[in-house]
Amino acid sequence: MQPAIIGELRAAFDATTVLTGADIDVRYHTDIAGVAADPPLAVMRPRTTEDVSRFLAMCHRSRVPVTTQGGMTGLVGATTPMAGEIVLAMERMNAIEEVDTGGAVVIAQAAVPLQRVHERVAEHGFMYPLDLGARGTCTIGGNIATNAGGNRVIRYGMTRDLVLGLEAVLADGTVLRGVRKYIKNNTGTDLKQLFIGTEGTLGVVTRAALRIFPAPAEQQVALCALPSFDMVRKLLDLSRKRLGGELTAFEVMWNIYYRLATELKGVAAPLPTNHPFYILMESSGSDAERLRADVEKLLEEALGEGIILDATIASSGAAAAAIWRVRDSSVEVSRATAPSVGFDISLAIEQMEPFTIAVEKAIKTVDKDAYMTALGHVGDGNLHVNAKYSPPADKHEEMKKLVYGITADFGGSISAEHGIGISRRPYLKLSRTAEEIETMRTLKRALDPHHILNPGRVFEM
Amino acid sequence: MQPAIIGELRAAFDATTVLTGADIDVRYHTDIAGVAADPPLAVMRPRTTEDVSRFLAMCHRSRVPVTTQGGMTGLVGATTPMAGEIVLAMERMNAIEEVDTGGAVVIAQAAVPLQRVHERVAEHGFMYPLDLGARGTCTIGGNIATNAGGNRVIRYGMTRDLVLGLEAVLADGTVLRGVRKYIKNNTGTDLKQLFIGTEGTLGVVTRAALRIFPAPAEQQVALCALPSFDMVRKLLDLSRKRLGGELTAFEVMWNIYYRLATELKGVAAPLPTNHPFYILMESSGSDAERLRADVEKLLEEALGEGIILDATIASSGAAAAAIWRVRDSSVEVSRATAPSVGFDISLAIEQMEPFTIAVEKAIKTVDKDAYMTALGHVGDGNLHVNAKYSPPADKHEEMKKLVYGITADFGGSISAEHGIGISRRPYLKLSRTAEEIETMRTLKRALDPHHILNPGRVFEM
Repeated sequence: MQPAIIGELRAAFDATTVLTGADIDVRYHTDIAGVAADPPLAVMRPRTTEDVSRFLAMCHRSRVPVTTQGGMTGLVGATTPMAGEIVLAMERMNAIEEVDTGGAVVIAQAAVPLQRVHERVAEHGFMYPLDLGARGTCTIGGNIATNAGGNRVIRYGMTRDLVLGLEAVLADGTVLRGVRKYIKNNTGTDLKQLFIGTEGTLGVVTRAALRIFPAPAEQQVALCALPSFDMVRKLLDLSRKRLGGELTAFEVMWNIYYRLATELKGVAAPLPTNHPFYILMESSGSDAERLRADVEKLLEEALGEGIILDATIASSGAAAAAIWRVRDSSVEVSRATAPSVGFDISLAIEQMEPFTIAVEKAIKTVDKDAYMTALGHVGDGNLHVNAKYSPPADKHEEMKKLVYGITADFGGSISAEHGIGISRRPYLKLSRTAEEIETMRTLKRALDPHHILNPGRVFEM
Repeated sequence: MQPAIIGELRAAFDATTVLTGADIDVRYHTDIAGVAADPPLAVMRPRTTEDVSRFLAMCHRSRVPVTTQGGMTGLVGATTPMAGEIVLAMERMNAIEEVDTGGAVVIAQAAVPLQRVHERVAEHGFMYPLDLGARGTCTIGGNIATNAGGNRVIRYGMTRDLVLGLEAVLADGTVLRGVRKYIKNNTGTDLKQLFIGTEGTLGVVTRAALRIFPAPAEQQVALCALPSFDMVRKLLDLSRKRLGGELTAFEVMWNIYYRLATELKGVAAPLPTNHPFYILMESSGSDAERLRADVEKLLEEALGEGIILDATIASSGAAAAAIWRVRDSSVEVSRATAPSVGFDISLAIEQMEPFTIAVEKAIKTVDKDAYMTALGHVGDGNLHVNAKYSPPADKHEEMKKLVYGITADFGGSISAEHGIGISRRPYLKLSRTAEEIETMRTLKRALDPHHILNPGRVFEM
C-alpha cells in the first residue's frame, strides 16, 4: 500500500518532479562507494526554492523523512536513502544566476557542479578557490552541506570561509532568504552557519553567494623529495616564510602512496620513487618570473640545508598537471589496493609522524599483511590515511575502531573534511564531548522537531 | 528587599567574587558611550569556567537575567545592565594559557585584552591579525561575541575566521569544552559559530583557541590622494592585482574626514588636505626591499594612469604610525564634532558613492547645517559614516531612521562589524527577513529557554 504522501505529492507537482516505482533510477540510491540501498519511497526533483518549501512542508506535516542529494560524491554514506525516505534530488536547480565581478561574488543554485563554477568565473578572469578531486560531479550544495576543504585551504580556507550568504529551507518549509554579498554583516545570529557542514540535518541549501577572487595569472608547481617528516615540517615553515601569500598548496605524500600512485596506468613519476616523503608545492601570483625565482630560491635554500633531497619545478602546464595527477590519484590507489579503509584525520603537525607509526603498528595486529598509505594537506593539519588489509574477510569495522581510537589518543579529529554521515557516527563521541553532542540534538529538535531532514545522519536522536 | 539570588550567590562564592550595593563601581554600568544605566543587582566576577557554570545555573533556576561584560568598548549599548540584571564581569579570567608556535595557535581566556595577545605572540615572532582602535581595552571574549573586524579583514578575515575553537557556557550552566586547535574539523554542527557574533545572547565565551601567523618582518604604509571614488575602486583593483597577498589594509577616507582628523591636536597631515579621497594602503611581507619596490611601482603606475594625484610612502616606523594615526582618529573626530550619529554599513562598493550622496542630501532635510563624514574598510565593503548635526536638539533617532532607511534602499547591511545590541535593534528588520529573525528567536528559546542571557539585546523575544 502506498503511503498517503505519494498521492499528495503527485497532486501537488507534475510527473517530472515526483518519481516513483520503476521511474526511480538506480543512481538515486547509489553513492560513490557503490553501495546501493533499497530504492526510496519517491524522488522529488524541485525546480525552484518554492518547490522545496512546499515539498518539505508536506513531509513535515506527514512526518515523512527526506534525504537530500547533490553529486553523491560524499564518502560517509550520508545521502543514500534509508528505508521509508523520500529523496530530494536537487539536480534541476543547477543555474549559475550571477557572476558579479565588481563585488567578486558568484551566485549559484545548489546543484551546480563545482567545476562549472570554476569554468564560468574563469571566463571573467576570476577563480573560485575551492577545489577537490570530485570537482566534476560534486555540487555547490553538497560542498556547503559538508563544508568541503580540498587543496587550497592553506590559502583560501574551507567552504565556510567562501560562503557570503545562502538561502536555505527549514524542515517546516520556512525559506530563509539570506543570499547576501557582504563580507561583513554582524546583524544577529549568522544563520548560514547552521547549514554549513551540518550535512543537511538542519535545512536544505538552495542557493548561495560565494566569494571569488581575481585569477592569479601565473602558477608554479614543484615536487620535492624529503628525507624525513621533520624536514617536511621545516620545509612548510620555510615555504610560509619565503612565499607568504603566494603559497596556495602544500601537499605531503608518504613514500608508499607515491610509489603506488606512480605505478598506476597513466601516472608518471616526476621524481624517483625511493624517497621517504614528497611535497607538492604550488604558488600563485601575477608575476611568473618572480614566482619562479621565489620557488627556485626557496628550493636552493632547502637543498643547501638538507631539508630536501631532490626537486623538480614544472616547466609547463602539462608538467604541472602531471605532478598534480600523482597527488590526485588517491581514489585510484585505494581501488587498486582494495580492500582498504579510508580515514580523514585532523592532527597537530607534530603528532602526524608518531600517529602514522602507531597506526601502522596497530593494524598489523589485526592482519600481519596490513599496511598504511598516507597523504594529506599537511599545512592544514589534515591527513588522509588508508589502511589496507588482505581479503577476503571484511575488517572494515575492526580497522575503524583501531584507527579512530589512536586518533583520539593523539588528540585528533576523526573527520577533517569528509563529515560524519552514517559511517563515522559511532565515533563522533571521540571528537565531541557528550555536552556538545547533546547541544547538537537541542538544535535539531528546535529546527526540525519531527526529525525529517537526513534523520540518523551525524548523530542519533 | 533583596532578591533571594543575592543570598544564594553570597553563600556560593567569596566576597571578592560577588559584589553588591556600594561595592559596585560605576564602571560596571558605564560603557564607552559614557551612558550610565542604573547599577546592576550584583556583579559576579568569576575566576574559572566552573564559577561561570555554577553562577549561570543558579540564575537559570531563579530566572535572573545576566549581562556579560568584557572591555565595555562596544558601540551598540549591549553591555550596560538593564533593570534587575546581574553583571557577569569576566575581568579576572584574563590569562593567556598557551602560545603554541608549532601549531600557530594562542589560547586565551575571555578577558585578555586584544593588545596583550598582540604583545605576547610577538615575543615568539608571531602576530594575531585582528586589530582595531580599542585594542588596549577590548577583550578576546568581546571580540568573539561581536565578531570584531577592523583593519586587516581584507587579508585575514574577521574574528570568526580566526577562532579555531572555543569554550562557552550555556544559560543552564552546561559547559561546551571546544577549545581545539584544528583548522579543519567537520564533526557535526560547528557549535562555536553559535557564540561568535551573537553578542552573548546564546552563551558566555570563557576561553578560545585563536589562529596566529608568523609576523611579517616588514611592512610598507602609503597614503594616496585620489580625485574621485571611481579612482578609489580602480586603485583597489590595481592593488589587489599587483600586491596580491601582500596587501594587508586598504582604508578609504573622504576629504571631510581627513580634514577634520588632521586638524586634531597631535595629528599631522601627511598629504595636503584638498583632495577628494585618501587611501591608506599597507602591505606586509618578509622582504622589505621587494615590498617597497612593489608599492613604488604600483603608485607610479597609478600616478601615470591618473588614478592617484599624490602619494607618500612612509620611510620610517614613525611615519607609518603618523599615517595610521589619521585613520585611527575616528572616535576623536566624532567627539570634536559632536553631536553626531555613527553608522557602520556594509554596501556593495559600486553603491558607496551614491549612498553617501543620498545620505548627505537626506540629513540636510532634517537640519540644513548637518553634514556627513565617512571613512572605511573599502576592500571589505564596509563604511563608517558619521552624521553631524547642530545642537542643542537631540536628532539621533531621526538621523538613524533616515540613514538606515537609505541603507536598506541601497541593499546594505545596517551593521558590518559593531553588532546590533540595543541601539540598532529597531532596525534589524531592515537587514534580516522576518523568517530569519524568527529563526534567531527559535535558537534563543532552544538554548536559553528562560531568556537570562543578555535579554532584549539584538532582538526582542
